[in-house]
Amino acid sequence: MNFRKARLVSGLVLALPALAGAHDNHADPVEYRHAGFYLIGWHFQPMAEMIKGEKPMDAKAFATHASAVANVAPLLAEGFANGPHKGKTDAKPEIWKNYADFSKKMQSFETESARLAQVAQNGDAALLKDQFMKTAQSCKSCHDDYRKD
Amino acid sequence: MNFRKARLVSGLVLALPALAGAHDNHADPVEYRHAGFYLIGWHFQPMAEMIKGEKPMDAKAFATHASAVANVAPLLAEGFANGPHKGKTDAKPEIWKNYADFSKKMQSFETESARLAQVAQNGDAALLKDQFMKTAQSCKSCHDDYRKD
Repeated sequence: MNFRKARLVSGLVLALPALAGAHDNHADPVEYRHAGFYLIGWHFQPMAEMIKGEKPMDAKAFATHASAVANVAPLLAEGFANGPHKGKTDAKPEIWKNYADFSKKMQSFETESARLAQVAQNGDAALLKDQFMKTAQSCKSCHDDYRKD
Repeated sequence: MNFRKARLVSGLVLALPALAGAHDNHADPVEYRHAGFYLIGWHFQPMAEMIKGEKPMDAKAFATHASAVANVAPLLAEGFANGPHKGKTDAKPEIWKNYADFSKKMQSFETESARLAQVAQNGDAALLKDQFMKTAQSCKSCHDDYRKD
């Protein structure tokens, strides 16, 4: 690395607090997982409406939503690690009493949503509906046990 | 599909409102993008700390964070579509006056964060730092023009 480049990198590293400043206090696990669920809800809802026939099937939009859910699913677990946490949450304390089972259910959601994103690329309506229901069921399975009504 | 399976699927479709109920009202674009930025901030901060030497480099953790940012980056743009939107937001109205430029900057963040996730798989410290700075710069470039101070 020459001197000029070294100076440039050094200057950018010094500027990092300002760059990272946008993200100050983004360190609350309850807020973190709510953020994850918000993104998932945003993308899940229009898929449900298409599956239920409440809006016309748009295969391309469906695939985008499915891919978004699959992208966020693997991030969720980190928001539950080392809990329970303080804050307004519907997460039941049972999560941390049965963490292995909870993790298994989170993994199942991750797997099913990844499959949904794959199936959505193909355009087979029956397969798509079937895999959507499996994904929705993997949400419900975890909510039933670990989310307050 | 036999009758039993048809009944099962039909039952699940009827149950969909309950399944989707978890995500009711997850349809506010301002909340949506704040959720995306929250996830990004959560994962960006520890990378910045490692790059700055404030915490020891953990290549595996860094790669996980980089991958998470790359997963969320492509979701952000949807939260800015068809704006400006009502709500408490630091998004400048200039976004929707210069939407092509804004979209280009969002695309740049998506590209740089995807590259960072790739580079983080290799473990070359110099490349990693360089690509992290490029990613941070792509954040800053958009914030400078389109986010209120």
